[in-house]
Amino acid sequence: MTIDVERHAVGDDDVSFDLAYCGICHTDLHFAMNDLGNTRYPIVPGHELIGTVTEVGKNAASRGFAIGDVVGVGCIVDSCLACKYCASNEEQYCEAGMTMTYGGETKHGRAGPNGQITVGGYSTKHVVDSRFAIKIPKGVDDLAACAPLMCAGITLFDPIKAFGVREGMRVGVAGIGGLGQMGIKIAAALGAEVTAISRTNAKEAKAKAAGAKHFIASSDAEAMKNAAGSLDLILDTVSASHDSEPYAAMLDKKGTLCLLGLQTAPVAVNATQFVFNRIAVTGSLIGGIKNTQEMIDFCVEKKLYPEIKIIDAKEIPEALKNLNDGNDAGVRYVIDCKTIK
Amino acid sequence: MTIDVERHAVGDDDVSFDLAYCGICHTDLHFAMNDLGNTRYPIVPGHELIGTVTEVGKNAASRGFAIGDVVGVGCIVDSCLACKYCASNEEQYCEAGMTMTYGGETKHGRAGPNGQITVGGYSTKHVVDSRFAIKIPKGVDDLAACAPLMCAGITLFDPIKAFGVREGMRVGVAGIGGLGQMGIKIAAALGAEVTAISRTNAKEAKAKAAGAKHFIASSDAEAMKNAAGSLDLILDTVSASHDSEPYAAMLDKKGTLCLLGLQTAPVAVNATQFVFNRIAVTGSLIGGIKNTQEMIDFCVEKKLYPEIKIIDAKEIPEALKNLNDGNDAGVRYVIDCKTIK
Repeated sequence: MTIDVERHAVGDDDVSFDLAYCGICHTDLHFAMNDLGNTRYPIVPGHELIGTVTEVGKNAASRGFAIGDVVGVGCIVDSCLACKYCASNEEQYCEAGMTMTYGGETKHGRAGPNGQITVGGYSTKHVVDSRFAIKIPKGVDDLAACAPLMCAGITLFDPIKAFGVREGMRVGVAGIGGLGQMGIKIAAALGAEVTAISRTNAKEAKAKAAGAKHFIASSDAEAMKNAAGSLDLILDTVSASHDSEPYAAMLDKKGTLCLLGLQTAPVAVNATQFVFNRIAVTGSLIGGIKNTQEMIDFCVEKKLYPEIKIIDAKEIPEALKNLNDGNDAGVRYVIDCKTIK
Repeated sequence: MTIDVERHAVGDDDVSFDLAYCGICHTDLHFAMNDLGNTRYPIVPGHELIGTVTEVGKNAASRGFAIGDVVGVGCIVDSCLACKYCASNEEQYCEAGMTMTYGGETKHGRAGPNGQITVGGYSTKHVVDSRFAIKIPKGVDDLAACAPLMCAGITLFDPIKAFGVREGMRVGVAGIGGLGQMGIKIAAALGAEVTAISRTNAKEAKAKAAGAKHFIASSDAEAMKNAAGSLDLILDTVSASHDSEPYAAMLDKKGTLCLLGLQTAPVAVNATQFVFNRIAVTGSLIGGIKNTQEMIDFCVEKKLYPEIKIIDAKEIPEALKNLNDGNDAGVRYVIDCKTIK
């Protein structure tokens, strides 16, 4: 099914663009299926947008946007622009709540194409406030692969930057799906010694190809135990609830376990880990616009791209089914938006 | 019962001192009763020592120690002095394990007075490596009250410094015993807006006298809920296992719950707090020598002392019993060491 939506007029701050690619994120599936119970239909998913600018408002022009530029849009299309989090380039923690790219409520009196509700990138055209548009570097060699970076890339880049990942730092990446693979690639490109952690050995080759130096199967209690105290940071991308204690035990003193997945069961760690080893458990949610720009500049320069499969619009239902069934094999699907309609 | 111990000879790095005061810490009770199962008898507890220097080794002299100086000793009397934690003044996390003031194993070939096992401050004389001696500022107006600062003071000062507590920061202190009261005093002296959190309202007056601006009874679910998102940092001094979720909910985005007590049940917090609010849960263990010196300088300058009760040696059993029964009312007992023997 396709629906006709009218994108709002291009205001002074806006750019409009013709969509070239839109990635399919697991979140799209959750929203499409109303898994969180808050979907407002009709819904147009998609928060990994790439396209070419067709119209530029005057303020957007003064920010350096021009017709013909290639731009990206990620999960956020608006925020209050006034609170302490917006001021510190962390729009994802905006006190008024960020406006998500689809299914979100518009701000600043903007009319969304679907009433006040934003409409995502499984589409042909888009209009966005240029303060939430990312400039794709000229000379990019894999434009379609930039689409998933708008979500999976920034989700890993943001904590990697926040925790100062650098040469020689011992970084664990748990979960070797689309997110985890980008985590390995970015951390390794920064010189970190990366340990990939996955339930079984099935993804060892993939993790090592991405740049992991070590691989540990979390189902191998002996291997997990041998790695005790060996990591400075663990980026845990696993969404399914799991025991965090073995991961905490892998941290050296003052190490950090950073959760990126929304486990439903409480995350429990023994107090002795916190007190005697001063470890920290924390989390991270996508990332702000400034870091998203920095991420795409870095990934394009270093040629760090996710493994993707470009699909036609008609293949969307099958792709969503594969995601739902866990048959995506860590490949990110990217819609060729020219095939829509 | 008293036992005769011979303190080791004063080496080049050492100072010897006549004990004036020694605080009684709850930990002393745990060790005396072998609650952790690792006590080696005979045991002489005490890790909150204050005394007057009687002899100075040549290296200690070059570090500025002189006969007649008043010094303090806290929980740590030795460490490897070589690892990354010792190098960063965090001897409590020494990779070789810190040598605790009593019941610990000596390092660097030192003979302890009790074989290789260190002997604490319920005593009349002490010898310590000057690198682990704290200089008590001249002109101190309550010397006996400095004894508990060697443990309770640094336990709070260290995280307060680590988390940059400052003017206007919203700091919660959970548990209003000896530790909590020092937390309130130090944080308030730094200009923080302190919220005291205790199970009931019984300690409200005491907490406010210490400098708390707000008081919340954790048993009042409504009051806890009203305080949602209102704190930047919570210093949780409670050792008894308790639900951490209501505390996590009191944190603003990017806030930190720092555990100082050794809860036995795992500390569990929902992943949404970590991901959507980027809170952190961590912990802290006493503090290193450099920070202990900084703490005593600060507390003496600002006149921040714990509430104490000076007791004679013969009153030690009764004091330990009161601690065991929870009848200490947040007062720290301090032994007048002149009454020993």
